[in-house]
Amino acid sequence: MSKYWSEFLNQLSPYVAGEQPQDRSYVKLNTNESPYPPSDAVLDAIRGRVSDRLRLYPDPEATTLRQGIADFYALKTENVFVGNGSDEVLGFAFQAFYKDKQAVAFPDITYSFYPVYCRLFDIDFQTFALTDTFEIDINTIPENPGGIIIANPNAPTGCYLDIKQIEALLQKHSNTVVLIDEAYIDFGGISCVPLIKTYPNLVVVQTLSKSRSLAGLRVGLALGDKQLIDGISRVKNSFNAYPLDTLAIAGATASFRDKVSFDRNREQIIAAREWTIKTLEPMGFHIVPSKANFIMIQHRTKLAKALYLELKEMGVLVRYFDAPRIDNYLRVSIGTLSEMQTLIKCLKKILG
Amino acid sequence: MSKYWSEFLNQLSPYVAGEQPQDRSYVKLNTNESPYPPSDAVLDAIRGRVSDRLRLYPDPEATTLRQGIADFYALKTENVFVGNGSDEVLGFAFQAFYKDKQAVAFPDITYSFYPVYCRLFDIDFQTFALTDTFEIDINTIPENPGGIIIANPNAPTGCYLDIKQIEALLQKHSNTVVLIDEAYIDFGGISCVPLIKTYPNLVVVQTLSKSRSLAGLRVGLALGDKQLIDGISRVKNSFNAYPLDTLAIAGATASFRDKVSFDRNREQIIAAREWTIKTLEPMGFHIVPSKANFIMIQHRTKLAKALYLELKEMGVLVRYFDAPRIDNYLRVSIGTLSEMQTLIKCLKKILG
Repeated sequence: MSKYWSEFLNQLSPYVAGEQPQDRSYVKLNTNESPYPPSDAVLDAIRGRVSDRLRLYPDPEATTLRQGIADFYALKTENVFVGNGSDEVLGFAFQAFYKDKQAVAFPDITYSFYPVYCRLFDIDFQTFALTDTFEIDINTIPENPGGIIIANPNAPTGCYLDIKQIEALLQKHSNTVVLIDEAYIDFGGISCVPLIKTYPNLVVVQTLSKSRSLAGLRVGLALGDKQLIDGISRVKNSFNAYPLDTLAIAGATASFRDKVSFDRNREQIIAAREWTIKTLEPMGFHIVPSKANFIMIQHRTKLAKALYLELKEMGVLVRYFDAPRIDNYLRVSIGTLSEMQTLIKCLKKILG
Repeated sequence: MSKYWSEFLNQLSPYVAGEQPQDRSYVKLNTNESPYPPSDAVLDAIRGRVSDRLRLYPDPEATTLRQGIADFYALKTENVFVGNGSDEVLGFAFQAFYKDKQAVAFPDITYSFYPVYCRLFDIDFQTFALTDTFEIDINTIPENPGGIIIANPNAPTGCYLDIKQIEALLQKHSNTVVLIDEAYIDFGGISCVPLIKTYPNLVVVQTLSKSRSLAGLRVGLALGDKQLIDGISRVKNSFNAYPLDTLAIAGATASFRDKVSFDRNREQIIAAREWTIKTLEPMGFHIVPSKANFIMIQHRTKLAKALYLELKEMGVLVRYFDAPRIDNYLRVSIGTLSEMQTLIKCLKKILG
């Protein structure tokens, strides 16, 4: 704190991201990165743009990338917005649709950036409780919210909401923007992107940091009706006209063209998740059903925080949240099968 | 506009950046990019990070880059903030220091993003008039503003404010944050960065997009007392914890190590600017004195807008601002000597 800080700044509580330790090498199962590298096609596309032309500003509209994403999803370029990671995209969307509206609604347990954004942008919010099994019951959503935000699958639980229920939400709340954060949709869920053509109140946000192995590149996107995408762009152009650099545009564009390695990687992650769940259950773990590239787990007797610390000591990083209802759970990202075997070996050692 | 847009969104007037046409090749003198490419050392550093590790999130603190910048300016890492272009850095600083304060003050003619930010972040502002020769007279700055923002050299005029006058400002307004935007300082001006050690109310913002030939990489920075830098970080961590990608960190870090090509390029740009001024004067142009990598020029008889359009037709892009006091001027970025010769040739043709 400082006399130069604004009142607004004094009252902010920033998001705390998962550890990115630079000191030693860990089996890193704490930030939901992909264990598989970007494909050679992606790396080559980036290398091809490491050139003299970096002296020039990037295309502020990132048109080639937006076209590539539109092609992938059978949409038009006007339905696609891209930004510097899905966090930035979410931030712009919150400002575009939820500022000076009724309180927006999201689950009591979800991506912890949502309340941080609301405070940052002075947006009212209300939460609705997940069920005892951490599922979303759409009947518990408050009447007439200023907007609805759902991570699907949800974070950090991994629970998945069926597309039929999302469609019901879009119909019931047709006067307000429903934002579906699909950061983890590619690991077994069904995307609601096709609903965009029918529902002008739907925005879907995705990221290239998980299923597309490009966390280091910082690319996220929003898909929706042209009027919603125009709104998000308007906020962007009031903040940072060029958020995506030339190399990120090149790598992300190549990623959407490379369906083969995209599919292979996510299938391997799904297989490793199912193996991990089957192996953990007989060890006394409760595992919340997951369609994400992570699982939320709780041991019958051993406290989650102690497990987290002992695993870290042994070189395995997982995520522990000191938050209501989930403070005796660990969120474990799904790595390679070999990394998951290391995790199991360490857990067996800890649990004796 | 759309029924889904917030009132806030309806009232935004986004910044309009200079054209980045993708259709044909232009002599591009409209967005103040460097005409010189990044050095091989910079390109090699980026290539070295185009690897499997792009699957991982970047270091959210960008520590190696911040250390490199601190070394360059003989500061500590804690005095350095980095972000996705200086536009983003400015946006965070505005929120950190100027929200819910008295109206901030900046010149009536300056970087047009400043009022856009104030509207975006709901910050009151007041302007003070530049003199008839487009200079800043620090005695015209209002009493007790909530902050002072000065681009030095100023944009789009190129006028430069002496460091002694900035020091006087810092002393007089010691209770408020003075933000000096040094986007164009490396073309003949003297940076006020050394004043940081004496004045805890000084923030200096810089960019790698101009003198460091890295507009395509999107890196900007803020320098200041630790408490001010902590404040900016706090806003960043409420918005986007990882704004700088791995490749941008690598390229920017190498840039601060490569003093030789940095100095060679800016000296060439200064030489081309002086040649251009000397050549334009006898052609009937008034040129505002400039310490930037651009000049603001006005012809004795030919209207600026007509000149802009005819130059564009001939394949030379310059910037025209349809704004009070400067709507009969053109802003011309300084390119290579050969590009400036092309400009002169075209102007001679137009003026007969």
